[in-house]
Amino acid sequence: MKIHDLTRELQERNGSKIVLVVADGLGGLPLEPGGLTELETARTPNLDRLARGGVVGLSLPVLPGITPGSGPGHLGLFGYDPLEYRIGRGALEAVGINFALGPRDVAVRGNFCTLDSQGRITDRRAGRPTTDRCRSMVEKLRSIRLDGVEVFVEPVREHRFVLVFRGDGLGDAVNDTDPQATGVAPLPATGGDAASARTAAAANAFVAAAAETLRNDAPTNGITLRGFARRPDLAPFHEVYGLKAAAIAVYPMYRGLARLVGMEVLDCGSTLAEQIATLGRVWNDYDFFFLHFKYTDSTGEDGNFPAKVEMIEQLDAAMPGIVALKPDVLIVTGDHSTPSKLRSHSWHPVPTLLSAAACRTDAATEFGESACLRGGLGQFEAKYLMLLALAHAGRLSKFGA
Amino acid sequence: MKIHDLTRELQERNGSKIVLVVADGLGGLPLEPGGLTELETARTPNLDRLARGGVVGLSLPVLPGITPGSGPGHLGLFGYDPLEYRIGRGALEAVGINFALGPRDVAVRGNFCTLDSQGRITDRRAGRPTTDRCRSMVEKLRSIRLDGVEVFVEPVREHRFVLVFRGDGLGDAVNDTDPQATGVAPLPATGGDAASARTAAAANAFVAAAAETLRNDAPTNGITLRGFARRPDLAPFHEVYGLKAAAIAVYPMYRGLARLVGMEVLDCGSTLAEQIATLGRVWNDYDFFFLHFKYTDSTGEDGNFPAKVEMIEQLDAAMPGIVALKPDVLIVTGDHSTPSKLRSHSWHPVPTLLSAAACRTDAATEFGESACLRGGLGQFEAKYLMLLALAHAGRLSKFGA
Repeated sequence: MKIHDLTRELQERNGSKIVLVVADGLGGLPLEPGGLTELETARTPNLDRLARGGVVGLSLPVLPGITPGSGPGHLGLFGYDPLEYRIGRGALEAVGINFALGPRDVAVRGNFCTLDSQGRITDRRAGRPTTDRCRSMVEKLRSIRLDGVEVFVEPVREHRFVLVFRGDGLGDAVNDTDPQATGVAPLPATGGDAASARTAAAANAFVAAAAETLRNDAPTNGITLRGFARRPDLAPFHEVYGLKAAAIAVYPMYRGLARLVGMEVLDCGSTLAEQIATLGRVWNDYDFFFLHFKYTDSTGEDGNFPAKVEMIEQLDAAMPGIVALKPDVLIVTGDHSTPSKLRSHSWHPVPTLLSAAACRTDAATEFGESACLRGGLGQFEAKYLMLLALAHAGRLSKFGA
Repeated sequence: MKIHDLTRELQERNGSKIVLVVADGLGGLPLEPGGLTELETARTPNLDRLARGGVVGLSLPVLPGITPGSGPGHLGLFGYDPLEYRIGRGALEAVGINFALGPRDVAVRGNFCTLDSQGRITDRRAGRPTTDRCRSMVEKLRSIRLDGVEVFVEPVREHRFVLVFRGDGLGDAVNDTDPQATGVAPLPATGGDAASARTAAAANAFVAAAAETLRNDAPTNGITLRGFARRPDLAPFHEVYGLKAAAIAVYPMYRGLARLVGMEVLDCGSTLAEQIATLGRVWNDYDFFFLHFKYTDSTGEDGNFPAKVEMIEQLDAAMPGIVALKPDVLIVTGDHSTPSKLRSHSWHPVPTLLSAAACRTDAATEFGESACLRGGLGQFEAKYLMLLALAHAGRLSKFGA
């Protein structure tokens, strides 16, 4: 039985409020064996207080040893099994620039490349053009029109852009046209089924038109396409959980992921203070609030241990503003670990705290990886976090009589 | 691979004895964060001694955050995945009054209702009649005969009764006739397939005959039917585990659940002392003994923390009588938590102890939620408890060479 079959059957509505704070890449590692992690090093009196009155544990984003990207990391926290729901490359790229991908769309990542006079690729990244040049080339591609299929082209950066085909009955079982080699021409697109053949035909027509449009624009005189993907079919939050949900996230990727699961994505400024102010302003309008904080991840990716510590302390300082709203359930976690020691996402379980009147308190007196290892939530798969959130909010009725 | 495919393949018979003590709703919560739970408050020298010499942990009845009813709670402890085996409302209701539901039966819950002269429902619960009146109305319904289908009617209480249709090829894909509204007539029953159409026809004939039989008995002059359900198809204990099992339970619901998995349900009086005496009397006749203690749940549901503590102490006092029989494996657990703070079943993991010669002891020196959180069994899904029981009893051979 699937999680959402359970939540559809058991969901209750009671006006309670749930806040999910995702500190991106929250989990860390000590720099030396036996040392303290970033979270344990940070001075976090507010998070520690929540840990004392609540229950803590470690979240496994996907499976032991599996390092998630932002997509699977967040899908898990939102209760969508990341092994079951995959977001294809094109769709994630579109979501990442906050393109409102619809059900009739197939998105694909485009790369500008350099073609020789025979149409063979000489540089798969077109000499890494500036993002400004990317924008002006995209502007040219926007002049292309196809029969029966609407086309959207959006710049990303350097040689990268997003292409979206919109039409009825477009499939996404289409091969990459990027041959991943130089000295050969881009591959033609072919569809694995009738619907995908329509997409492939549109893609081939677009590539041919692009070669014509860009013929005098070397080194950005060709394009390749990778990762044709439709929007994943994710049942929305309000349907699976009975929650009216708001996303208070600054970065486009996370705003896009929230939109995919049916959250309303709010204007919320660009600072944590503005995010908290937004939370307070809309408090009466929603049941569930996803608040995303990026900088615990970016400092980890920079390998900057002290900077990550400082970002955690900034997050801690923001907690009283959330607590003052008296959420029924307050969860603080991450979508994955990003240890500054590794300068990258990692597979390590993620510190998680849940504060609610009905939680069974454990011995934790602070919020950190070691305390969480002994916590009452144990080590649990992230996909079950929403069940715990709903249960503690009194929003799940009894299963079976 | 399913649990029972494993146990069918690996089961060994060696004359060992397993006792499973289920203290209903055993798990609890502290009244204040950081305080003691009911089990931690209770003085339990005997359970503590077992915890010291054994291994403890926390059982998850279904999934994190999911609160089970008695049916799923017990199925899990018996090793039947509660997400896979569902007991329909009618079947559970029949089981709950200890009706011996057979393979040719479809059970459904009946409600007496009040009908006006046009046959429209004016009170869905017929003014909540006394249970005595329920019995006399049921007696009248017992006069109804149907062609080709045997009918059983059993009182439950107030407006509720159980109706069982017995015959060949009766399906249970039949809608509720209760419209869940007043001012409208009960719905006709229709079957979702040929077998269920037979059941629906019998149900409609019964409802029509009931209206005739009860026509002068307002406010109990009509009936509605909810939750048509066959007996769930549960392979019996002796087949899946190689265990001859006895149930020593006082309350009908638990006796019925035990019967569903093929246990012999024994006469055992009504007190814990009588249950223990029964256990001793039949000790040589069975391999496995399910002993159910209800009052840890009912005091929790009453929100009576001190009374639940006292019930736990009564259970503790009964342990020496079990230990004296020298079971090879003794397990004490619950089917779910019922914190008196919440006055209801809950999702919190359930303290579990296992005492056996082969167990790997942990640091637990007492039986309680906090000790169990640090215990050697960790947090585990209840459906795996029978594997642990069989293993510690030497009743599972090696898997693979």
